[in-house]
Amino acid sequence: MSVSPAPAVLKELTTALGAGRVSADPGLLEAKAHDRSYHSWQPPLAVVQPRSTQEVAETMRICHEHKVPVVPRGSGTGLEGGANTSADSICLDLSAMTQILHIAADDLYATVEAGVMKSQLNAALAAHRLQFPAGPGVDASVGGMAATSASGTMAVRYGTLKENVLALTVVLADGSVIRTGSTAKKSSSGYDLTHLFVGSEGTLGVITEATVTLHPVPEANKSGVWSLPSLQNAVELVVAALRSSLRLTRVELLDDLTVDALRKYNGYTAPVTETLMVEFSGSAAEVEAQYAQFAELAAHYDAAEHLQATEPDECQQLWQARHDVLPATVALIPGAAPLATDVCVPISKLPECILQTKADLESVDLLAPIVGHVGDGNFHLAMLLPPGDDAAATKAKEINARLVDRALAMGGTCTGEHGVGIGKIGPMRTEHATALEAMRAVKAALDPAGLLNPGKVLG
Amino acid sequence: MSVSPAPAVLKELTTALGAGRVSADPGLLEAKAHDRSYHSWQPPLAVVQPRSTQEVAETMRICHEHKVPVVPRGSGTGLEGGANTSADSICLDLSAMTQILHIAADDLYATVEAGVMKSQLNAALAAHRLQFPAGPGVDASVGGMAATSASGTMAVRYGTLKENVLALTVVLADGSVIRTGSTAKKSSSGYDLTHLFVGSEGTLGVITEATVTLHPVPEANKSGVWSLPSLQNAVELVVAALRSSLRLTRVELLDDLTVDALRKYNGYTAPVTETLMVEFSGSAAEVEAQYAQFAELAAHYDAAEHLQATEPDECQQLWQARHDVLPATVALIPGAAPLATDVCVPISKLPECILQTKADLESVDLLAPIVGHVGDGNFHLAMLLPPGDDAAATKAKEINARLVDRALAMGGTCTGEHGVGIGKIGPMRTEHATALEAMRAVKAALDPAGLLNPGKVLG
Repeated sequence: MSVSPAPAVLKELTTALGAGRVSADPGLLEAKAHDRSYHSWQPPLAVVQPRSTQEVAETMRICHEHKVPVVPRGSGTGLEGGANTSADSICLDLSAMTQILHIAADDLYATVEAGVMKSQLNAALAAHRLQFPAGPGVDASVGGMAATSASGTMAVRYGTLKENVLALTVVLADGSVIRTGSTAKKSSSGYDLTHLFVGSEGTLGVITEATVTLHPVPEANKSGVWSLPSLQNAVELVVAALRSSLRLTRVELLDDLTVDALRKYNGYTAPVTETLMVEFSGSAAEVEAQYAQFAELAAHYDAAEHLQATEPDECQQLWQARHDVLPATVALIPGAAPLATDVCVPISKLPECILQTKADLESVDLLAPIVGHVGDGNFHLAMLLPPGDDAAATKAKEINARLVDRALAMGGTCTGEHGVGIGKIGPMRTEHATALEAMRAVKAALDPAGLLNPGKVLG
Repeated sequence: MSVSPAPAVLKELTTALGAGRVSADPGLLEAKAHDRSYHSWQPPLAVVQPRSTQEVAETMRICHEHKVPVVPRGSGTGLEGGANTSADSICLDLSAMTQILHIAADDLYATVEAGVMKSQLNAALAAHRLQFPAGPGVDASVGGMAATSASGTMAVRYGTLKENVLALTVVLADGSVIRTGSTAKKSSSGYDLTHLFVGSEGTLGVITEATVTLHPVPEANKSGVWSLPSLQNAVELVVAALRSSLRLTRVELLDDLTVDALRKYNGYTAPVTETLMVEFSGSAAEVEAQYAQFAELAAHYDAAEHLQATEPDECQQLWQARHDVLPATVALIPGAAPLATDVCVPISKLPECILQTKADLESVDLLAPIVGHVGDGNFHLAMLLPPGDDAAATKAKEINARLVDRALAMGGTCTGEHGVGIGKIGPMRTEHATALEAMRAVKAALDPAGLLNPGKVLG
């Protein structure tokens, strides 16, 4: 007869960290047991809320000793179940680690604790006229974004979290604390463990602090909304822009369904057709020149300007509309849950990939607006699942599976920015068929007992 | 009594690959036994020159079976002994793998074999008005640059090899072939093995193919040479530029000794003082505006323009002068060998780091011009060792050791772009003291028998 380690480990954690850090409150267990996805979860044994790297190390040491699995958690905005807990696990909730440890304005980096939110960091950077633009439109923790290798609308200009993390403090499975990278802007010293932990979704170690790259706030921005006669034209315009001297800060594709959803939700006024939202940044003169150059190029692809904005408030409002896409989409079917897809393909393959997917969608009865970080070849369907409609859920998963196969056949990836979590394990294995054994060897080397976020990424 | 595996392994390699691929010619053994550094080497057992990933796999399989160490080699331009061979090893010379496999112009990537030279790739890209700007000024192989995590003068704008490799084909220690990454521009799928192999200097696997990021050739460039009254002013000007809306394509620091060396070597005419060479790229109007904005900023730091260039030939000539720094420096002392240092620090720490190093140099009798990729905080001393002067070599190594300690104390790294090889093992261990065990675990996981480039990086 095996004895559950639960009471012993909880007692020891409480003794080590203090009662305020360890909770088995049923409401908290449920709140912290899952992200924003449709993936399954069970309430964990407890939620531990450390306030320092040292407390995380202590937690890992104790859980390692008791062989209790640990599921690290940031702000819980994941879309593939990466932070979902099992009944035998501890939720290691890093959301109370919210200290901005250092802003090195002249050196363009900041070191923050894992629970610092993107909005919090950007608020602190404003006084320096600096920003941390990497990451999704939704607010999220720096640690969670790094663990997921997140990106978002600004990746086309500033890169993803991969290009914006210089160094990490990581607690390993046994509780040892390591520092990867340095505060130098580049390095050829030793193995690049920083990038190994970025995107590992808490399965190799727990990110407790991150040193991230900062960027100057542009003097000026100019944004525009452009209507296109076809998807092909939209993508060809973007490719032409990327191959020119234009520097796009953002370039987002909205399909006709998305535009329709936005019109109903927030009074968006663009015509219901394939739409590009663009932004240029720089000096005031530069953004005017860049926008004019884009307009000239756009004419070759029969693009029509619907709207432009240069005032900060106007630009902000325009992009807020874009960030409303998810709630706007969900509002199309009251109570519907969205199943978000996330493939990324070489840009020239986008039209074919999207058109084949739209044809596939037509064969079933699912509403699925599309938005795309088109400059990166990454796009999302938000397939709306009416409440309680299991058949719709099954269909949506089949559509997603075929979409992933399509993207992989085109040299793409099954996830551009949402991560693997629970939802993409099969596709990830297909994508990295030859490299899977090497990934497993790395996992076994760093977490031999398999205690860190078990069942995620590799499965 | 142990029997040397040499005759058996060479026979088997010759049978498998053909006589033309395996050589024990003494001249070739010596030529391929070392890079351009001062580090020690021994001729290897043989030089194997494969023409395909399959032949590399076959080589690794046979060497693995015989437990013979393998030292992968690109174009041999390394500066820390990363490709230097030992007497019991096989040199795996990838320089004959020179096929450009695919140029995806619209998707801004190319897939090439490891031995493709940067110059060869850029020549092939010219027809597409694309370029591969990452990497050093000296011509080098794509595989070698990736293995070293190289960078160079354009990193401030385009990033290092880390930011410019999308995917790799890698042969592991046992001869298995894996593909990392994808041709999608970004991905959150699985562990980032691509970045693990980039900079691993052939100690984790042999890079046989790389998919790299391409960039448009700018419509126009404008370059300038500026004289500064002090190092502090030069660095403060660069920091101000980096925090502004300026986009520097290159920004190089040359100290007074370097300028003096260039004047003697190639008729460089700039005044003998701290000097910045800058370049801006974009449309013709943009480069004029950016340059004018830089000039305005430069006035605040008492910078005086010595020269400017906009015609392609003039710009090319101006930057060729910069790339002549190494031969120009060596020419200062006939027959001298340069010991190149390579620390990288947060940019604001550059003046202190360089000035302390100059003071340290004054205490010994060594000539050591300095050049710096100042936008990245990376700089090089070329300490000139008169032929046969062992005392100078000892002094130079001591200077370098103190320089590394200084950089690490400032939050920097012991190598910004040259790699660890043999020469930086001690400093790398100091720099990554907490992460060393994790690095060793990764090495043991991927190369349990320790056959890949033994003694390099980790030691």
